Amino acid sequence: MTLTRTTQELGVDAARLWDSLSTLGRIGAYPDEATGLTGVRRLALTDADRAGRDLVVDWFRAAGLEVRQDRIGNVFARRAGTEPGLAPVMVGSHIDSVATAGRFDGCLGVLGGLEVVRTLNDHGISTRRPVEVCFFTEEEGARFGTDMLGSAVAAGRIGLEEAYALTDRDGLSVGAELERLDQLGTTAVPMSTRPYAYFECHVEQGPILADNGRRIGVVTGVQAINWWEVTIEGRSAHAGTTPQRLRRNASLAAALITVRAEEMVDSGRWGALLSTVGRLEVRPNLVNIVPGAALLTVDLRNPDTAAMDRARADLRAYLTEVEERTGTRISVKETAHTAPVAFDPGMVDLVESTAERLGLSHERIISGAGHDAGEIAAVAPAGMIFIPGMYEGISHNPREYSTPEACEDGINVLLHCVLATSDQS
Amino acid sequence: MTLTRTTQELGVDAARLWDSLSTLGRIGAYPDEATGLTGVRRLALTDADRAGRDLVVDWFRAAGLEVRQDRIGNVFARRAGTEPGLAPVMVGSHIDSVATAGRFDGCLGVLGGLEVVRTLNDHGISTRRPVEVCFFTEEEGARFGTDMLGSAVAAGRIGLEEAYALTDRDGLSVGAELERLDQLGTTAVPMSTRPYAYFECHVEQGPILADNGRRIGVVTGVQAINWWEVTIEGRSAHAGTTPQRLRRNASLAAALITVRAEEMVDSGRWGALLSTVGRLEVRPNLVNIVPGAALLTVDLRNPDTAAMDRARADLRAYLTEVEERTGTRISVKETAHTAPVAFDPGMVDLVESTAERLGLSHERIISGAGHDAGEIAAVAPAGMIFIPGMYEGISHNPREYSTPEACEDGINVLLHCVLATSDQS
Repeated sequence: MTLTRTTQELGVDAARLWDSLSTLGRIGAYPDEATGLTGVRRLALTDADRAGRDLVVDWFRAAGLEVRQDRIGNVFARRAGTEPGLAPVMVGSHIDSVATAGRFDGCLGVLGGLEVVRTLNDHGISTRRPVEVCFFTEEEGARFGTDMLGSAVAAGRIGLEEAYALTDRDGLSVGAELERLDQLGTTAVPMSTRPYAYFECHVEQGPILADNGRRIGVVTGVQAINWWEVTIEGRSAHAGTTPQRLRRNASLAAALITVRAEEMVDSGRWGALLSTVGRLEVRPNLVNIVPGAALLTVDLRNPDTAAMDRARADLRAYLTEVEERTGTRISVKETAHTAPVAFDPGMVDLVESTAERLGLSHERIISGAGHDAGEIAAVAPAGMIFIPGMYEGISHNPREYSTPEACEDGINVLLHCVLATSDQS
Repeated sequence: MTLTRTTQELGVDAARLWDSLSTLGRIGAYPDEATGLTGVRRLALTDADRAGRDLVVDWFRAAGLEVRQDRIGNVFARRAGTEPGLAPVMVGSHIDSVATAGRFDGCLGVLGGLEVVRTLNDHGISTRRPVEVCFFTEEEGARFGTDMLGSAVAAGRIGLEEAYALTDRDGLSVGAELERLDQLGTTAVPMSTRPYAYFECHVEQGPILADNGRRIGVVTGVQAINWWEVTIEGRSAHAGTTPQRLRRNASLAAALITVRAEEMVDSGRWGALLSTVGRLEVRPNLVNIVPGAALLTVDLRNPDTAAMDRARADLRAYLTEVEERTGTRISVKETAHTAPVAFDPGMVDLVESTAERLGLSHERIISGAGHDAGEIAAVAPAGMIFIPGMYEGISHNPREYSTPEACEDGINVLLHCVLATSDQS
């Protein structure tokens, strides 16, 4: 009863949380031409990422946490509980970023977890279960092409050797970079002890909460994600003398696929499909030469498995049409394929009732982006808390912004979810 | 009469010509992945180009020619005539290449001119007019974005300072590279003495002669060429959470333009239009980010000025549609704009009658590619000789190939055109 009463009043230190977000955001900061703002570029397993990891681990230790690292570089920081042997309540996210990022994506969940621990320390609150704050390696997939990599390895969906072998565009491998940066931990993967519960607070990265004026998003699940790397082989030829009928134009093939991917979304025939061609490269990439080769990526998202499978099949079929029309050969490599995730109903209810109890307006929402919680959900009850972002929730962009108040709302919900579960036996 | 009789029998040394082409082709050679062949990469004003220039200049001097260089790096090698003060008969082309080239494009015209001089030397033939063999700087435009640069400066269409200021993708300028490679000559531009006649022998770089079984193409002119550098500004955003309606998708805009440029050709409504999107780049070029910026190039060719102008206007109008549909801003920089060229009728007749006299099957043809002859035609009577290429005349590709016999045919026509004009007073 004491604890329960305490938790009613308990709140995190919003200023301290904000200060931590700002300090971490200075690591990997760069002047962003497109926006004129200062962005964050902390791609996984780069020197900048290493510097960010060191800072956060120092903060973990300063908060009295016992830090360990697993063999894919994920970091776990434990606050002991009063009852030895009980599985921990885990709180986490990631601190790696895309090449043009803001300060909140992932970092809010990790530094929010740290703020939860700092708050427990401030008030001398002990919990029955251990509380662990963690961050996972290469959640973005922006460098090695597979997102949620660290949490997927921790949860056992992706094998360690497969993960080590992934390479970036310069041919550098995950394994080699982990070693270079001294991030090869000894803790076994997949994780041996399943957490009792896993919570992740994250910026929505979308416009819905702001549009509806909600302060908290109760995340019910994550939509399916499918990534393709599409390689197009044509034939380079002289732009001024090669009749169109004799061309095997790789840039035309790439363009046709890009337009079709967009039109599929517009048609609505594949449910709430989202599609994006984010990478697009042609060779030799010269003004007066018909490109002989092209590479592009397709990012497909869909909350509905059946609609997603139809979209994939139909886009595949279109690639054959493009081959025939352009005389090129097209091959597809799937670099990511995650099924939609439905979070544990009890966890969803807990997030919802906690927001309600704290007097924060809320609604249930499905996540448009992939998150580490979606991987951990395979081995433990997982729940997610969203907070609204400004500017239509723009993310993966230096304009990404959530107010100090919004961050405080989310981490207060996180705090009370942790308190509620860490005292269950 | 003596000379005339001599010329009836006179022929070049095909083996020596072929050997020169092969030797020059080894400079800048690289293993081409796409074809499995050895290609040539000798972009203008690179170290490889400098090495090629040195080799050819050594050959010029060994043939007894007096070499001079102008302020844009064009090289002129003179064989004195018997009547001082008469304007020279000029033979030339270029030795710079695109990034994925064969051994013939340009080099045939330059080394063919050298072979003409060597043949005159072998037979102790003197001419009334000087004979000059020359090569021009950056004909391809593949590095600095403006093709026929050296000949355009020599002919006065492009100013020297404008040419010096052109930069490659690394920001290196024509002026700085000319200086670095010690290719800044002292001969004034535009050329002070107009040649009496200018001849250029070149591979067709197209399928027509081979399809029709002709040994010589009598070039009547060059089609108009128009290059655009199209910059697209959108907004980068999260691929998984940003609804299509809120996107400003630069890769979509680039794809729409690429598809339209192709469809314009298919429709036939713009005459014998050719169009190519050869460069295509997006930023930040990551799988899970809607591209916020894109750059592409459009290469338009048309033998008819009116049809070309209509095509340019209609494509411009379409860019506005694309801006509205995608919410992007699109700007266009014209990096090349040459009008169609009609060669001097007397020169065309001379090439034709010479081919006829030598018993070589021939037809009149318009050039699909731009050539230095098209620039020199503005200041002197110019004529061109085409020879067929294999594999549908593929060029700007390591598969580019013309047989030793075809090269011999073309250079024999060149030889006799030079003889015919160099003895006119």
